[in-house]
Amino acid sequence: MKQSKLFSKTRKEAPNDETSASARLLIRGGFVEKIGAGIYAMLPLGLRVLNNIEKIIAEEMDAIGGQRILMTALMPKRNWEMTGRWSSLDVLFKIVRENGESYALGATHEEEVVPLVQKFVFSYKDLPFSVYQIQTKFRDELRAKSGLLRLREFSMKDLYSFHADEAGLDVFYEKAKDAYFKVYERAGIKDKTFLTFASGGSFAKFSHEFQMLTDAGEDIIYICKKCSLAINKEIKAEYPVCPECQGAEFEEKKAIEVGNIFKLKTKYSDPFNLQFTDKDGQKKLVIMGTYGIGLTRLMGAIAEARHDDFGILWPREVAPFDIHLIALNSTNEADFEKIRTAADKLYLDLQKTGLEVLYDDRTDKSAGEKFKDGDLLGIPFRIVVSEKTLQKDSAELKARDSNSQELVSLNEIVTRKF
Amino acid sequence: MKQSKLFSKTRKEAPNDETSASARLLIRGGFVEKIGAGIYAMLPLGLRVLNNIEKIIAEEMDAIGGQRILMTALMPKRNWEMTGRWSSLDVLFKIVRENGESYALGATHEEEVVPLVQKFVFSYKDLPFSVYQIQTKFRDELRAKSGLLRLREFSMKDLYSFHADEAGLDVFYEKAKDAYFKVYERAGIKDKTFLTFASGGSFAKFSHEFQMLTDAGEDIIYICKKCSLAINKEIKAEYPVCPECQGAEFEEKKAIEVGNIFKLKTKYSDPFNLQFTDKDGQKKLVIMGTYGIGLTRLMGAIAEARHDDFGILWPREVAPFDIHLIALNSTNEADFEKIRTAADKLYLDLQKTGLEVLYDDRTDKSAGEKFKDGDLLGIPFRIVVSEKTLQKDSAELKARDSNSQELVSLNEIVTRKF
Repeated sequence: MKQSKLFSKTRKEAPNDETSASARLLIRGGFVEKIGAGIYAMLPLGLRVLNNIEKIIAEEMDAIGGQRILMTALMPKRNWEMTGRWSSLDVLFKIVRENGESYALGATHEEEVVPLVQKFVFSYKDLPFSVYQIQTKFRDELRAKSGLLRLREFSMKDLYSFHADEAGLDVFYEKAKDAYFKVYERAGIKDKTFLTFASGGSFAKFSHEFQMLTDAGEDIIYICKKCSLAINKEIKAEYPVCPECQGAEFEEKKAIEVGNIFKLKTKYSDPFNLQFTDKDGQKKLVIMGTYGIGLTRLMGAIAEARHDDFGILWPREVAPFDIHLIALNSTNEADFEKIRTAADKLYLDLQKTGLEVLYDDRTDKSAGEKFKDGDLLGIPFRIVVSEKTLQKDSAELKARDSNSQELVSLNEIVTRKF
Repeated sequence: MKQSKLFSKTRKEAPNDETSASARLLIRGGFVEKIGAGIYAMLPLGLRVLNNIEKIIAEEMDAIGGQRILMTALMPKRNWEMTGRWSSLDVLFKIVRENGESYALGATHEEEVVPLVQKFVFSYKDLPFSVYQIQTKFRDELRAKSGLLRLREFSMKDLYSFHADEAGLDVFYEKAKDAYFKVYERAGIKDKTFLTFASGGSFAKFSHEFQMLTDAGEDIIYICKKCSLAINKEIKAEYPVCPECQGAEFEEKKAIEVGNIFKLKTKYSDPFNLQFTDKDGQKKLVIMGTYGIGLTRLMGAIAEARHDDFGILWPREVAPFDIHLIALNSTNEADFEKIRTAADKLYLDLQKTGLEVLYDDRTDKSAGEKFKDGDLLGIPFRIVVSEKTLQKDSAELKARDSNSQELVSLNEIVTRKF
């Protein structure tokens, strides 16, 4: 994409009401724009990042057999009454129509997925299976703050698994754990993310969270020095020693939850009477698990974990583009044309090799402004074409996370493996 | 995908409250499931169709320079008050938080996109451009009915264009028209879809609709016999002759709107004072256009336009899979194994050529049941492997829209161009 065509632009300053580094950099870079407290629109570059995160998560959910569906945001009140969460889930947005009919706006989807799959589950032969969706969720967070880290409207992947027995759930639960760590690895934050034993909230007694270390986080976790399992502060008093390895030494850290998984067992199959007929002809309740990752929060968390004073360092699979091609300007018309011709050609040639390229072809920006924007946008590789580099038939290549650059000939750079 | 793993299943009967053919077939095929009036969840096969429609529309919007963004469903009340639509748009769902703060649920996005782009538009140099999103829309339709044709919650593409003058808008408007017809062509309904002169509703005085002929439609249009421009009944009285060619003979038809485009001009830039500085240093209001296609409705319209008594006939680019591979069963164990081996191999080989294959590997279904399901699902090509076909080292190939089938050797079928 040509940067001169991009309607969104970078900003020198972030709004004063944004306190987290990620929110400040995401707004300054023109990735997102605040619409209201806890409500952000995705601009072209931000949507590319979010879509890349979606692709990673969908691939990993597909890999463990998840079947992708799309449930609804408008959810009839009666289902929420059946589980008691119409009154107990305080973050539920509610809509009352003029005729008195009410909807909840989807904050989570147990209340929809259970009656939905009930239409197709009859026998043990229909089990196990899992379904997932990537959808906008709505939660009336009083403390909406920190940019993308705590939102009222956000994109979330929620997967639900259905089993004939707890042994089946246990097997799938471990698979899901592995899949989650694959997501964090591809998203560039695995080294900072810890499996954390936590309370189960309105879903179950206990859960496992995936907590990413960051000072912008609102959670406190205690990491077992022996086995690296973490325990959320909310239940730490119940666990003087690590439940995994009995270790008694912990490190206290600030962190943010970037995923959580719950063994629901029969908590939500029971109110809807989601049953199946087992091999022995007996009717039994279906055993369930639920597995969530907030995509928008993950985007904020990545920006939080991977930035320096000048901007974001997007990991390769998440970055809005692979290459940031920058053509510098020249006051000499012949030089200007020469640079343009070489950069235009590079733009096409790099794209032909399958790379996604943002081409800074703006004619009204200085080299300094272009480099600053480059650091802010945080695309993994920067290629600069200038009068100076063309004197050696070359372009200058620099990785965003490196301090050194190298001159590479124009011929070689299009054959380079990025 | 293996059909034995698919949690959704076909049904013999559709619910009684579904009257349109498309809704009945989409539910019987396990494409969608009704959650409430005007609210449907997408099951795996339906979501694949919807995603294919999304891909077509995104590609055609990208081709005319649209920059993809994602705005929000929660929209602060104040913006809707500025345009007067908080009280005038009767389909607006409204949410009141406990502290009295109110949101509209996005029914359309002029109220968000104008203040959003305002942060980036200053000079004529920033114009023209266009942005679009594909997002869930919410409209409190009293008459929610006909399955996917009139919904309270649905996926929509809305594009907004911004120009320095009306001449610029006119040029882009024609480009958008062409792009829309490309969408309908790829979606397999171009021959039934007519550009229709219509009222502009809350957006403008007039608009152009794209109306697809179907008896399930709620609109009446008059098609000019000379130039094929249609006129919506709502404004026909004002146009005794065709405004395009002055023809006076019309054909009356029932139709459904599958897209509409509006020249907003300054209708929404005015209340937000979206200005730019022109070449002459003068501040002027930005000129706008808006362009919508409901993806979910388009899915319903395709099913309405392209079905027979036995099921849907998905056009190739929209179909959930390219090939429906069906392995018949045999009571003879050796034959059963032979069929499985051949079909399993074909499943892998066809996928290796880049085709998407639904493999009916179910062991508890008769040939008749499998063929019936095949017609209902409406995948463009059916390949059957059976005892009989294997006697000639072949499989039987049949297109969904054809009455004849042919035996094709197993070697040849994987080199066939589908």
